[in-house]
Amino acid sequence: MVNDMLPIAERLGWVAVDWGSSNLRAWALTKEGRVLARATSDRGMLSLAPADYEAALLTAIGDWLPANGRIAVRVCGMAGARQGWREAAYLPVPTRLDGLASGAVGPTVEDPRLDVTLLPGLCQRSDDVGRRFDVMRGEETQLAGLAVHEPTVSGLVCLPGTHAKWARLEDGAVTRFATFLTGELYRLLAERSVLKHSIGLDDLAEPGCRQTFVTAVQESTESPEALGTRLFGLRAQDLLDSDLPAGDARGARLAARLSGLVIGLELAGVRTDLAHGEPVTLIGTESLCTRYALALETLGIDGRRIDGEAATVDGLRLAHAALNHEHLAT
Amino acid sequence: MVNDMLPIAERLGWVAVDWGSSNLRAWALTKEGRVLARATSDRGMLSLAPADYEAALLTAIGDWLPANGRIAVRVCGMAGARQGWREAAYLPVPTRLDGLASGAVGPTVEDPRLDVTLLPGLCQRSDDVGRRFDVMRGEETQLAGLAVHEPTVSGLVCLPGTHAKWARLEDGAVTRFATFLTGELYRLLAERSVLKHSIGLDDLAEPGCRQTFVTAVQESTESPEALGTRLFGLRAQDLLDSDLPAGDARGARLAARLSGLVIGLELAGVRTDLAHGEPVTLIGTESLCTRYALALETLGIDGRRIDGEAATVDGLRLAHAALNHEHLAT
Repeated sequence: MVNDMLPIAERLGWVAVDWGSSNLRAWALTKEGRVLARATSDRGMLSLAPADYEAALLTAIGDWLPANGRIAVRVCGMAGARQGWREAAYLPVPTRLDGLASGAVGPTVEDPRLDVTLLPGLCQRSDDVGRRFDVMRGEETQLAGLAVHEPTVSGLVCLPGTHAKWARLEDGAVTRFATFLTGELYRLLAERSVLKHSIGLDDLAEPGCRQTFVTAVQESTESPEALGTRLFGLRAQDLLDSDLPAGDARGARLAARLSGLVIGLELAGVRTDLAHGEPVTLIGTESLCTRYALALETLGIDGRRIDGEAATVDGLRLAHAALNHEHLAT
Repeated sequence: MVNDMLPIAERLGWVAVDWGSSNLRAWALTKEGRVLARATSDRGMLSLAPADYEAALLTAIGDWLPANGRIAVRVCGMAGARQGWREAAYLPVPTRLDGLASGAVGPTVEDPRLDVTLLPGLCQRSDDVGRRFDVMRGEETQLAGLAVHEPTVSGLVCLPGTHAKWARLEDGAVTRFATFLTGELYRLLAERSVLKHSIGLDDLAEPGCRQTFVTAVQESTESPEALGTRLFGLRAQDLLDSDLPAGDARGARLAARLSGLVIGLELAGVRTDLAHGEPVTLIGTESLCTRYALALETLGIDGRRIDGEAATVDGLRLAHAALNHEHLAT
């Protein structure tokens, strides 16, 4: 207990960072991997030139650093992209989840207290066994978080989001993956298309929205080819359907339907990869995982949820241990 | 020949207008229906309040009007929407193409030379024989243009565009229709999504683009459920595919693929409605009809093209004749 009263700088073992396109999240950890503190910043890759990264990092985590000594900072995400701090080239699949550190690079830093490592993303080339061109950067570290607890993890994992990722894990390696533009498609349609006049905010805890969402998932998985006309149908339904509630509830119902249609299309695209009765591991925010779990349940598929932040930190712990040539206690 | 030297005002029989969301197009016609002149304006429905319409119309066609007498102005499109000049309520399908005038309304006008009629659109309610909620306003008049030449016209008609319409005609009536968000989806993805960095301008006359488009149409019709991952795949392909050409040709290829994917999804949605060997009538601009005809050809479907402007004027001629209780010479 006395130890917990010490300043972070005296207890700091290393720093984990998830540096994305639009923000960064950092965690101060003890040598043993316990989280001491969190920091966030809106200085994402899209707002930074290579020369800006070190200062942005120091602004976010400078308070944690001791006056002397050298602290390892392990970074996943877009900071390692070609247009980021320094490129950590994609590793091609199949790649072992405990082998991501093999593609890490160290950007030049001026502050002698910083020992920064950027982790790579994964890429996949088109081949004759059904793989298609694809890339991920950041999500591979969340997948690696699963291997901390189960080094030979296998199964299908979904990471919902703007660009939802589905990864097939086999014996501790990523063997193939697919990205779906689902979140971005939803946002574009809800905010920028003719549907913007009709789409509100849904609440899947409300029975009407929930049923509407479930029905839309079913329709979209059963006949994905009708997506284009179902989308315009949301506008027509808003104009014509006297069974819809009025006011905010109307926009909520139509939002639930749009969400179900685009998530249903995604599930239609992956269900052929699912073995009969196979569960799906969901990694992400609670609200998105709940939504996807409901969609999966509609198809009779069990969804197991893992917190996205915990997975990221676990994945960075695995990379940190590998870079230190340590065996990670699980 | 002498007659052609007279001012338009002395030869004017009536005026046809297609008044859309973002612009209006007007045609001066003789009593016999021959086009004397054309006018366009960017004063579309979205930029006008009800009180603005008469002045906008006079700005566009005032030069054609004689000093005395009353000229019929037949208007199709969004000017008849609820948020337009005055609402001409949707007629429900099935509706005969020569019966659109039965739903026409006359807005109040102050200029004694104007006798304005707004034509209605069509609506469709969800039912148990596969119809879904849908609306059209403007395209029904283009469909009516077909009935000028063949009063008992039957078949499947496609009107490509921002919101592509597919209509089933039976014995001179629209019996069902479906709208696809295809054009809007393309534009949103090409200009507003992560794909905007990759998508250029395609040219289907270029063999590489043409083949890419055809392949994408085939893929999308064969497995429409993979749309979401194929979309992100365009970005990944741009990052990884060394077989793609460089420079503008790269963006052109990826644009051709995106176009093929979204049009292919649309065709996947309508092909179940096509009888074996049945041709499709395409109404629209030459470039869009050429693109759709190529997509249809990929599926072994014959596409017959009709100029969109000619169809609009013909449809307004049919409505004008009905409103005048005239028999239209074809």
